[in-house]
Amino acid sequence: MACITLITDFGNSDEYAGVMKGVILSIVPEASIVDLTHKISHQDVVQAAYVLESSRSYFPDGTIHAVVVDPGVGSERKIIALKTDGQYFLGPDNGVLSLLWKERKIEECVSVENSEFFLPETSRTFHGRDIFAPVAARLFLHTPLKKFGPPVDTAELVTLQFSSASISSENIISGTVVYIDSFGNLITDIEARTLLELCSLFPQKTPVAEVGCEKIQGLRSSYASVPENRPLMIIGSRGYVEIAVNRNSASQVLGVKKGATLKIYFSDEKSTGS
Amino acid sequence: MACITLITDFGNSDEYAGVMKGVILSIVPEASIVDLTHKISHQDVVQAAYVLESSRSYFPDGTIHAVVVDPGVGSERKIIALKTDGQYFLGPDNGVLSLLWKERKIEECVSVENSEFFLPETSRTFHGRDIFAPVAARLFLHTPLKKFGPPVDTAELVTLQFSSASISSENIISGTVVYIDSFGNLITDIEARTLLELCSLFPQKTPVAEVGCEKIQGLRSSYASVPENRPLMIIGSRGYVEIAVNRNSASQVLGVKKGATLKIYFSDEKSTGS
Amino acid sequence: MACITLITDFGNSDEYAGVMKGVILSIVPEASIVDLTHKISHQDVVQAAYVLESSRSYFPDGTIHAVVVDPGVGSERKIIALKTDGQYFLGPDNGVLSLLWKERKIEECVSVENSEFFLPETSRTFHGRDIFAPVAARLFLHTPLKKFGPPVDTAELVTLQFSSASISSENIISGTVVYIDSFGNLITDIEARTLLELCSLFPQKTPVAEVGCEKIQGLRSSYASVPENRPLMIIGSRGYVEIAVNRNSASQVLGVKKGATLKIYFSDEKSTGS
Repeated sequence: MACITLITDFGNSDEYAGVMKGVILSIVPEASIVDLTHKISHQDVVQAAYVLESSRSYFPDGTIHAVVVDPGVGSERKIIALKTDGQYFLGPDNGVLSLLWKERKIEECVSVENSEFFLPETSRTFHGRDIFAPVAARLFLHTPLKKFGPPVDTAELVTLQFSSASISSENIISGTVVYIDSFGNLITDIEARTLLELCSLFPQKTPVAEVGCEKIQGLRSSYASVPENRPLMIIGSRGYVEIAVNRNSASQVLGVKKGATLKIYFSDEKSTGS
Repeated sequence: MACITLITDFGNSDEYAGVMKGVILSIVPEASIVDLTHKISHQDVVQAAYVLESSRSYFPDGTIHAVVVDPGVGSERKIIALKTDGQYFLGPDNGVLSLLWKERKIEECVSVENSEFFLPETSRTFHGRDIFAPVAARLFLHTPLKKFGPPVDTAELVTLQFSSASISSENIISGTVVYIDSFGNLITDIEARTLLELCSLFPQKTPVAEVGCEKIQGLRSSYASVPENRPLMIIGSRGYVEIAVNRNSASQVLGVKKGATLKIYFSDEKSTGS
Repeated sequence: MACITLITDFGNSDEYAGVMKGVILSIVPEASIVDLTHKISHQDVVQAAYVLESSRSYFPDGTIHAVVVDPGVGSERKIIALKTDGQYFLGPDNGVLSLLWKERKIEECVSVENSEFFLPETSRTFHGRDIFAPVAARLFLHTPLKKFGPPVDTAELVTLQFSSASISSENIISGTVVYIDSFGNLITDIEARTLLELCSLFPQKTPVAEVGCEKIQGLRSSYASVPENRPLMIIGSRGYVEIAVNRNSASQVLGVKKGATLKIYFSDEKSTGS
């Protein structure tokens, strides 16, 4: 049985997310609603896109993911509903869903315009409650996408530029810290396979990450494989290279913020770690 | 099917709200429990009353709203359960439910005293767990209100004074910022209809809001209708006039805190906005 | 019907707890999942153990409590699943479950090793998602403990030293502040019965708590039994002696932090409180 997930920038202090659940449960009392996060930085559409990408595949077929990070609420911006990989996605046309069509086929995509599915009175400032919530509930009830509005081509929608790592001819990987989680782990845009392929090309060499003023030797398999307060490079759970510090915050210990650059090169010294 | 909602000042760090859910689910495993917020400022009964008022109508008939903002826990203060508008409300007798009887008929109201419905051991400091949770669960199971204790007249209960806007003979509206949400939007006590009626009386004039040192011209229909970092006046989703700043915090940009006064007058200059 | 509860140090900003729920609901769509807290201080195993102890008995028989405070994730540390008091407990072998076997019989305890119950791809950094969540779901479905791995003796597992109060020959109780909740209440390791037994031995005397620079006379039965901003001693809802300040934070008003010592002696002066 499907779920409805919520990703918003509403925070946990106001009643906004709870009210969305009231609207959903008024229509589908049996829905399981999962908070992915309500603490997206206000209006940070890129962060919301990453959170969705890291989460969606862990939910059942048919799940509806509603993303309400929507500084354009009440303006002429579209609301988009689409289907891909057996799940439904709902969000404003500001790029928050655009990672979805970067690498996969969108089965169906519509502009949500049919006010028959909205709350009777629609405010100008809280479409999460008045549009997203009732539409998510109707998707849960298998209302076909085409009922919500006309089809749109994703090529006509706002598509964000997401940073992506590159490899130089000298086999140096250049990436960016795209997210820092609440543990202070530095999550990069360097895909695990990018690093692992180079590692297998140079089995005698050691990958070294350069970030801030630090050089971090070797690819580790657990945080605890280095002493406390020491940095390490590891493949994170999202499938990207991460820099962490054992039992501490890499961001604080290394003084590194979102947007920092990271380089990985291969050294002749043999790694000490595993 | 009904829900049970929770409004508390417990915060999200301690286990208190989760334990209330354990008690409820031990009695009614099928209950949908919705967190409206656990981040009411400690003991801020007025804020909790507003959150309840903004939320309750979006929940199904029969929903039980439990409000546990209760600095008098363990003292002689009553616990009240009442029915109105087809829903049930549960809270301490400190005024947190008093907005409910300001403008509508209370069908039934009782003082919750029958310990048969409490947990067997009742602590002095956590009635949320020991009384509110099991009573909410029993209300969910349709136990009649009168079983919980003797009827009480709301006229005998603590009733808060809520601020309300006024209109001068020169048609100047005077209001107050009663709540600042996590986006930094300034939510006032000026009802939408108060402003809209005056707007329709003076169709050639422009409403101007004065708050802090700022004069804000016109009534807008979306945050994005002004440039970034510029203030605007809008009808908020709670049905009250709000002051916002596009893609920023009005509270921070304008230096305005809860309790600030706001005046709206009508100017002969035609508004530039929509 | 049983629940699944979650205690983690993931915080509420990242999607980690929500993703665990996606994995659980993919296996058992009907599960009620309760967040006890995701705001354990990073890697604070003792705090998590206390939260679990304060919460577990309020949940239905058969409930599965999953505790993911796990700085050793990906290392050789074991994952433990055990049954006691009719409920199931899942956590890393770092002592987070060790309060459970301090005072009660563990019916069955296994080392979770059978990867047939894990997600197909197991990361090195997020066993909450890849192991704890699917195993919790299988426990919910009544998969027998022994299917998950070999039995282990709790005597071989990491067992924490929890602080415990002592009584001197002069009947002075010495305790420690082991937790400060979000209200600023100081929760000690002095069991209610320890104090109450001495109170009944000395009915003519008054217990006096010494903490920080403050002497607090008498044992109270509600926060509101002293004037605002005044400290008091009370039996807290966890069954331990607490120091609070009426309508304020005891931690801030008294300048007391976690780990502070507290003494209670009996004075000949008669208490003024109730």
